[in-house]
Amino acid sequence: MIRLSELAQQLECECEGDGEVAITGIASLGSAGAGDLAFLTDPRRQAEAAHTRAAALLVGRRFPRVEREPALALLRAERPEVAVARAVELLRPAWRPGPGIDPSARIHPSAEIGPGSYVGAFVAIGEGCRIGADAVLHPHVVIYPDVVAGERFTAHAHAVIREGTRIGNDVILQPGVVIGGDGFGFARRADGGYAKIPQVGRVRLEDRVEIQANSCVDRASLEETRLGAGVKLDNLVQVAHNCDIEADTILCAQVGLAGSTQVGEGAVLAGQAGVAGHCRVGRGTVITAQSGTHGDLEAGKMYSGSPAFEHGQWLRSTAAFARLGDMQRELRELRARVRELSGESGRKRD
Amino acid sequence: MIRLSELAQQLECECEGDGEVAITGIASLGSAGAGDLAFLTDPRRQAEAAHTRAAALLVGRRFPRVEREPALALLRAERPEVAVARAVELLRPAWRPGPGIDPSARIHPSAEIGPGSYVGAFVAIGEGCRIGADAVLHPHVVIYPDVVAGERFTAHAHAVIREGTRIGNDVILQPGVVIGGDGFGFARRADGGYAKIPQVGRVRLEDRVEIQANSCVDRASLEETRLGAGVKLDNLVQVAHNCDIEADTILCAQVGLAGSTQVGEGAVLAGQAGVAGHCRVGRGTVITAQSGTHGDLEAGKMYSGSPAFEHGQWLRSTAAFARLGDMQRELRELRARVRELSGESGRKRD
Amino acid sequence: MIRLSELAQQLECECEGDGEVAITGIASLGSAGAGDLAFLTDPRRQAEAAHTRAAALLVGRRFPRVEREPALALLRAERPEVAVARAVELLRPAWRPGPGIDPSARIHPSAEIGPGSYVGAFVAIGEGCRIGADAVLHPHVVIYPDVVAGERFTAHAHAVIREGTRIGNDVILQPGVVIGGDGFGFARRADGGYAKIPQVGRVRLEDRVEIQANSCVDRASLEETRLGAGVKLDNLVQVAHNCDIEADTILCAQVGLAGSTQVGEGAVLAGQAGVAGHCRVGRGTVITAQSGTHGDLEAGKMYSGSPAFEHGQWLRSTAAFARLGDMQRELRELRARVRELSGESGRKRD
Repeated sequence: MIRLSELAQQLECECEGDGEVAITGIASLGSAGAGDLAFLTDPRRQAEAAHTRAAALLVGRRFPRVEREPALALLRAERPEVAVARAVELLRPAWRPGPGIDPSARIHPSAEIGPGSYVGAFVAIGEGCRIGADAVLHPHVVIYPDVVAGERFTAHAHAVIREGTRIGNDVILQPGVVIGGDGFGFARRADGGYAKIPQVGRVRLEDRVEIQANSCVDRASLEETRLGAGVKLDNLVQVAHNCDIEADTILCAQVGLAGSTQVGEGAVLAGQAGVAGHCRVGRGTVITAQSGTHGDLEAGKMYSGSPAFEHGQWLRSTAAFARLGDMQRELRELRARVRELSGESGRKRD
Repeated sequence: MIRLSELAQQLECECEGDGEVAITGIASLGSAGAGDLAFLTDPRRQAEAAHTRAAALLVGRRFPRVEREPALALLRAERPEVAVARAVELLRPAWRPGPGIDPSARIHPSAEIGPGSYVGAFVAIGEGCRIGADAVLHPHVVIYPDVVAGERFTAHAHAVIREGTRIGNDVILQPGVVIGGDGFGFARRADGGYAKIPQVGRVRLEDRVEIQANSCVDRASLEETRLGAGVKLDNLVQVAHNCDIEADTILCAQVGLAGSTQVGEGAVLAGQAGVAGHCRVGRGTVITAQSGTHGDLEAGKMYSGSPAFEHGQWLRSTAAFARLGDMQRELRELRARVRELSGESGRKRD
Repeated sequence: MIRLSELAQQLECECEGDGEVAITGIASLGSAGAGDLAFLTDPRRQAEAAHTRAAALLVGRRFPRVEREPALALLRAERPEVAVARAVELLRPAWRPGPGIDPSARIHPSAEIGPGSYVGAFVAIGEGCRIGADAVLHPHVVIYPDVVAGERFTAHAHAVIREGTRIGNDVILQPGVVIGGDGFGFARRADGGYAKIPQVGRVRLEDRVEIQANSCVDRASLEETRLGAGVKLDNLVQVAHNCDIEADTILCAQVGLAGSTQVGEGAVLAGQAGVAGHCRVGRGTVITAQSGTHGDLEAGKMYSGSPAFEHGQWLRSTAAFARLGDMQRELRELRARVRELSGESGRKRD
């Protein structure tokens, strides 16, 4: 239990209304009950606020006052999503195992694990690994030899980190993530078959990278596949060998990057988007869902379609596409009409 | 070995022809040999039936008689696919390990496993879990704390079920499935980087849910991601946090649902289809392969395209699209012709 | 260290320039330093060669001479990519664990493991398996009963091979691969729900198949899902039950094949492409990225689009699509103009 006024202080929010309200939990607007802090970041949903059973509501600075008697207490934040993130941490801390090393874990004698770490059942850690302090390695994590990770490294069950990977601080891997699998490199032989090009580079994950379930980041063929600081990958994402992704870029679920793709800082690739090999996606660029490009994309723009082009133009094209059958018919009718008109003109010439 | 007449009884089929035929196995029409029951559910493939070496053929009620001497014995079923499913169970039962707990499994002392269960090598089960009777947990399954599962729960190797998950009866998880991985929730900070929004909700899988290999169902941010009774997910499917999928819906391979998507009962999303966040897909609606929507879709209709619209209209649009280059040329020619005609008219005015 | 002339011999290359140059490593053109062999297979990037710090450059037979003083030593290969693959093997051999069986591995007493094999920590091998000589089974590989694999089988951490799978020689599975998961087969019952059709067939992987991280190949419903010799699957690929893929075919990342698809020899399906069930893709056919087909595709052609058609025609259609909004406007203007012209003609008739 925490008083609303005290919560306001911890979340760096302005408290509007009764600061003595007791807050015991956090929930979404529709599910919130007595004692809950709810939140509403979309002003278009303002009307819903009047009916909530929440004890208080976290909103943005410019969110309108909620007309209700007695008044609903508000917390106003400059960046309400960030305040919500912090509020969840305070009010419903996620489960986290305490420190300790499970006796079933198989850690190579030469490996070093930092103090305060948890190493779960059946974790396997190879020769020469160095894992920083306060790591949480859930059961069945596999770390191949010569992996170096910074502090507060979290890896969930069945994450695999292959040999030579370099990992910064505060990196999180969800279950089933594969870091450093072989890149897809084959050379066509004269007989039509393929010779494997050994993949002997590595992966580097910089600070605060988070990678969600069952995503794959391939090792470079010779040098480094790099995910810059703060890069976030959703589930089932594919990052091929030699890719280089700048800081704070977001790849949504099932996005695929082919080999040697470069993505600039703060870009967003929406779900199921794809980028062909050796392309550059500019800083801050957005690629919308299911779109794909086999060419470079400029910085700071939004692209759509497969192949992708400028989003506004694509909106016009897709609107027209939905009535393309009609357009085809109209064009046919028009041709007939013009042929007829030409004929009339022709006859008139006689 | 079983007599055809007896098999007919067990499958609730009508036996047409020699009921004394001995059936020893089941195979597809092309591969079937002596003693095999084959099946044919597509009447357009009727001609193939005459040449089968099968001992008998399972077909639908209205399937035409197979002209052959001696006559091919038939089993006629109201729902032939359902009868085939049952016939495979009887004639070629799938391998299944017997009950028993492998000594290498690491089960928290507080966890309960129902009678008749199999727990394979290196399975890890966390604190407070309750798994119902007759479970089959293949080697390397990882169950985090506080997971509750009903009866006859089957999880294949490397399935991961994260903390707090609720699982009904008769649920099957294929290898590598991840249930309850963190949702993809981040709040943009003033400096352009992202703060993680802790994901502290759960996943609920109702009775008879089956999820195929390496698919991911994320835990809700605060409340529940739910898969209704009988929902089936194919391989490599992505279900984001807070999704709600009603009973008996099918998501084919590589389908992706973004956060808070709602899908009605009995819908079918074909392979690689996608739905953006906060959309509703109506009851019984079909989305065809590789299609995607960022808006709500009505119940009981078929949608195609990316972005998706009504399927019949999409068929016309795609037919026209294949000759869009020609349409563009025709339009150009027509403009020139009309300009010419206008000029003639103009000249005539003089 | 190896002399360039000796390396030339081992790689079956022609040495052009100073054969006494000492080679100590291999790197890409941009990263290469003193002692490194670099390589350049794309003649369009010829200009970059002049500035490399590499000790020597591996190129194709017809690559132009690099103008530089002193001259840059060249290795010329008939198939430069194949020579690069061999050069990496020689100059930077990939890490590989030595033979030996980890005491934590759980191998059924009836299983046979060939001589020279490595079996890592927590590997589980079921009843009746026979694994050939010189296998490398990394930690946490799970092999269900009755799996037969040839020589030099490599499986990375968390690969799962389900019961009855047949594997040829020199097969490589990257981490998290699932072989033999149940096919997605359900029969609709009268009540709208689905009955599971047991999947009791198997998977056959022929010689030199390589499957990358987290890809899934489902077991056949009754017979066999087959990947022919030399087939390569990239990450997160889906191969459904009963598919048959001929030799030396490439499926790039996130490709999906629905059930009973047949793909001819030497085909290439680019990233995120999809093929619907029961289709045939011809020998040597290319499907470009994000394309999809629900019909058969002829041999030796290139297809694009969703639904896919001939690539050259698709290029024209997509070029026109980007200005479809303009086309729509032009068509509208043209109709108005023609209506006006018709009116003029009409008036002239009076």
